[in-house]
Amino acid sequence: MMKLKGVMPPIATPFEDGDVASDRLKENLRRWNQTDLSGYLVLGSNGEAVSLNESEKLSVVEASRAVIPSSKIMLVGTGLESTQETVRFTNQVAQLGADYALVITPSFFKGSMKPEILYDYFMAVAESAEIGILIYNVPKFTGINMEPELVARLSEHPNIIGIKDSSGNIGQLSEIVHLCEKGFAVFTGSAPVFFPALCIGAVGGILAATNIVPQEFCQIQDLYAAGKLDEARELQNLLTPLAKAVTAKYSIGGLKVAMDVVGYFGGHPRPPLKRPVQEAEEELKQLILHVRDRAGS
Amino acid sequence: MMKLKGVMPPIATPFEDGDVASDRLKENLRRWNQTDLSGYLVLGSNGEAVSLNESEKLSVVEASRAVIPSSKIMLVGTGLESTQETVRFTNQVAQLGADYALVITPSFFKGSMKPEILYDYFMAVAESAEIGILIYNVPKFTGINMEPELVARLSEHPNIIGIKDSSGNIGQLSEIVHLCEKGFAVFTGSAPVFFPALCIGAVGGILAATNIVPQEFCQIQDLYAAGKLDEARELQNLLTPLAKAVTAKYSIGGLKVAMDVVGYFGGHPRPPLKRPVQEAEEELKQLILHVRDRAGS
Amino acid sequence: MMKLKGVMPPIATPFEDGDVASDRLKENLRRWNQTDLSGYLVLGSNGEAVSLNESEKLSVVEASRAVIPSSKIMLVGTGLESTQETVRFTNQVAQLGADYALVITPSFFKGSMKPEILYDYFMAVAESAEIGILIYNVPKFTGINMEPELVARLSEHPNIIGIKDSSGNIGQLSEIVHLCEKGFAVFTGSAPVFFPALCIGAVGGILAATNIVPQEFCQIQDLYAAGKLDEARELQNLLTPLAKAVTAKYSIGGLKVAMDVVGYFGGHPRPPLKRPVQEAEEELKQLILHVRDRAGS
Amino acid sequence: MMKLKGVMPPIATPFEDGDVASDRLKENLRRWNQTDLSGYLVLGSNGEAVSLNESEKLSVVEASRAVIPSSKIMLVGTGLESTQETVRFTNQVAQLGADYALVITPSFFKGSMKPEILYDYFMAVAESAEIGILIYNVPKFTGINMEPELVARLSEHPNIIGIKDSSGNIGQLSEIVHLCEKGFAVFTGSAPVFFPALCIGAVGGILAATNIVPQEFCQIQDLYAAGKLDEARELQNLLTPLAKAVTAKYSIGGLKVAMDVVGYFGGHPRPPLKRPVQEAEEELKQLILHVRDRAGS
Repeated sequence: MMKLKGVMPPIATPFEDGDVASDRLKENLRRWNQTDLSGYLVLGSNGEAVSLNESEKLSVVEASRAVIPSSKIMLVGTGLESTQETVRFTNQVAQLGADYALVITPSFFKGSMKPEILYDYFMAVAESAEIGILIYNVPKFTGINMEPELVARLSEHPNIIGIKDSSGNIGQLSEIVHLCEKGFAVFTGSAPVFFPALCIGAVGGILAATNIVPQEFCQIQDLYAAGKLDEARELQNLLTPLAKAVTAKYSIGGLKVAMDVVGYFGGHPRPPLKRPVQEAEEELKQLILHVRDRAGS
Repeated sequence: MMKLKGVMPPIATPFEDGDVASDRLKENLRRWNQTDLSGYLVLGSNGEAVSLNESEKLSVVEASRAVIPSSKIMLVGTGLESTQETVRFTNQVAQLGADYALVITPSFFKGSMKPEILYDYFMAVAESAEIGILIYNVPKFTGINMEPELVARLSEHPNIIGIKDSSGNIGQLSEIVHLCEKGFAVFTGSAPVFFPALCIGAVGGILAATNIVPQEFCQIQDLYAAGKLDEARELQNLLTPLAKAVTAKYSIGGLKVAMDVVGYFGGHPRPPLKRPVQEAEEELKQLILHVRDRAGS
Repeated sequence: MMKLKGVMPPIATPFEDGDVASDRLKENLRRWNQTDLSGYLVLGSNGEAVSLNESEKLSVVEASRAVIPSSKIMLVGTGLESTQETVRFTNQVAQLGADYALVITPSFFKGSMKPEILYDYFMAVAESAEIGILIYNVPKFTGINMEPELVARLSEHPNIIGIKDSSGNIGQLSEIVHLCEKGFAVFTGSAPVFFPALCIGAVGGILAATNIVPQEFCQIQDLYAAGKLDEARELQNLLTPLAKAVTAKYSIGGLKVAMDVVGYFGGHPRPPLKRPVQEAEEELKQLILHVRDRAGS
Repeated sequence: MMKLKGVMPPIATPFEDGDVASDRLKENLRRWNQTDLSGYLVLGSNGEAVSLNESEKLSVVEASRAVIPSSKIMLVGTGLESTQETVRFTNQVAQLGADYALVITPSFFKGSMKPEILYDYFMAVAESAEIGILIYNVPKFTGINMEPELVARLSEHPNIIGIKDSSGNIGQLSEIVHLCEKGFAVFTGSAPVFFPALCIGAVGGILAATNIVPQEFCQIQDLYAAGKLDEARELQNLLTPLAKAVTAKYSIGGLKVAMDVVGYFGGHPRPPLKRPVQEAEEELKQLILHVRDRAGS
């Protein structure tokens, strides 16, 4: 099986006339397939998984599986709020050929999500899942944080094989890398700290901005691996403003605008999310031009 | 149609062997039907709606509808993360006979949920919904708050007929009552402030603790209506510790323990939620005994 | 001694040419003395106590004492970050004739301010203070909240005689009233919930807006005491927008503008605080006019 | 003048019988003087500056100045809540020979501390200060964060020469380094991210744990400078648990225990802060032993 590392986009889900546009999704994937991306996250936050119903989700998985080659990782977001539902959906997705499942922390009942509850949850899911699972820690969406000690305990389970930590907290990421079992795959989900994440030992990044500038982020990892720290840092600094614009600043609507700008199919997010206003589009264009001028890609 | 006011429980969803236990649900409802409760919230937070799949949700609605008399309000939680899905599910539920839909604020993409986005969302849902909708504001679960000015603007739509505000913020509730259209039904969702909520003009409460002590909360409203403020306040003070125990302190697991204690079917919540440990059960028993001794019910 | 209850302003501190303007302060007090205010809080948050050095603070206390009659309560804010400094300063202020001290929760080392630390702190201060102390709970400034159970334990000390709770949380205030020793004086520090605070048993309010419209807030309490709940609630609703404008919205700069509008000396706050821009002044004027038109004062 | 970079402890303030113990302070400094520390922060958060009165603060500055050699940087915390008071105290400290002042963001009136207010504040202080100032950003104590764009604008003022950013946010630190004027000195104040802070271009760290293990942190910076990244990261991983124990976990009481363990004078913090319980002392000893065994110092 492919090594769990490298740069992966949490791929956007295209819509046409309000419906999932599988053909557009496939076109996007075919183009990404030509880059050095190590794989894909399907049905992640940026894939608007929470805005889809279950049959739509399954259609996205099927369409993706049809186009993602076996040489690239296919990771699918499968976490729901109850253990039972997460297991059911994870195994449904496994049957459709997903390589691994990314399981978000349950979060609706925030006050109840004590470490022991989260421990039991992930252990129970791992025990019943037919594919390996990665923990998805994304406090900005869930209000829940997975502490390094808890992740370390979970990393002992043979079917819990990694984490996407989108906290952006590099101190926490360092501790996760240091405390977890050897071979546990630690990804950052925060593009502005991709370079420092590599410095402290992360194996890669699952980053919204790589829907748009996949090759540039792969290059950061290549430069880092080649010991060219100054160049890696410089490229990171060049990419950070664009990465922030398509997440914190303009969210998924902005990400889709930027995809359109670079020739992928972006389109509209599903309401209540929106494409940002016209000025935002202009700003995103400028940011992309700036990256391209300087990165020479 | 029945008047939208009074005391309603967000009814718990019973499980047996991990599955929705419709018969148990009906038994509970038949017993609640004999109280002065004005109606029910089906598929609320305390109904563990987020832990169910869609076919389970529909079975809960059907079972409830079969037993809830036309003299009592049947409110159903129908909010999902996208406008499209919320409308689809609301209208499915309307077909099954729900009187009104309670629509929670979308919240996964917290940073994007600006007032205008929330305004457009509720307006679009109201426009397409076949039944009247109430806004559900519950910051402790969603991280989103609906400001009074926003609620006031939405209250102008004829199909947005009320709100359940579980913020516990009485200043905010006052402003909502004051600013919204005449006849807009303002409920508090926070039992410890039920009495002050009535003082500032709320029409009722949708309160977890009324799964256990429905008649006592109805009595607070009766005392208030009769101008017996001191007695109403005293009864509130008596009930507050129990109300906090089955929400903030022990959550839904505690609520279900307490239901078992008073003879309803409580059972287990769906994991990862749990019944609290034995000592909690003892504490809940004592709290209930204390209420019964003093309230004489 | 005067009864610890009623409506009190946390009086603003006037500055001229950057220095404390004691004469202006005395003029303001002489005018407030003609109202039904039960007393004053000197050196509160709205008095910009944190922006003064110690000799300035003492001059404010002296000037106030010279003008506040013995028929009105003189409460002085004395809390600092260490037990030792709080005791020292409290007793200095006691020597200058303050009736009571309002002691804010220490808050710089937020993570260390566990309930036991706060308990020991207030007990130690109460033990050494030469005048009675009231606890000052203001989470929006301190990031610390005093839970009702903790306040109840502290209320057993004979020298801890009350609390100003500015949380705005009426559920919490209810529990404080209910759990604390008889005679423990519970004030709200949040004007928009003054009426509901009275409903649940608070003895009064220490409210920024009463620098501007003292008599109107006294009237709410009078109406409540006379059982005229509807009129009290209506007056509260009338005053709430103004009360929010001079706190949450425009802060102390706005409070001082509004003071100038109604003929008190407001002036400028000490930088970095500022008077708000011209439009804010216009808005504040309109809010005050609206209150006067309707309240007929 | 000495170059503004390297490792500096925010030195603890020793107390005996409740009073500042200047001799003990001097003993500690003489011993630290023998290490590779580039300088000291006097009257920082860990120096319990907020718990001292002004004459005590000045005595700490005088005692420190008497022992700190001109070859080491003497940075003094001088920020108060008002512009006027901060300028006055900064210049008093300058007269006593401080090299630079560290100015914390005002924070009591959190809601008012908008970027423009903070900009004006730091500009005004810089304009009137007789020594260069560094911005102190410490959200965990202040609830305020200085955004990179704001820091960048301030870095243009010739008298604003650096920042201590204790947010622990490496993404933010990267942007500050990248956006600020050349030569603007960016220090992290968070020991667990010292190594990644160096990777993204910080010039040093002002770190509580360096009161205890100064040489080990200097070594991280030396290893990094020598291109020995793996060794630097390993040493960081070794030191992180101790660094967390004397800050987040046991706070200043724990820091002082640890100082006693390694032969500095620690003693007691000023109440309400406390030394932690006996078990904490044992844990701190073990952490220090573990570091010494492995680091070979």
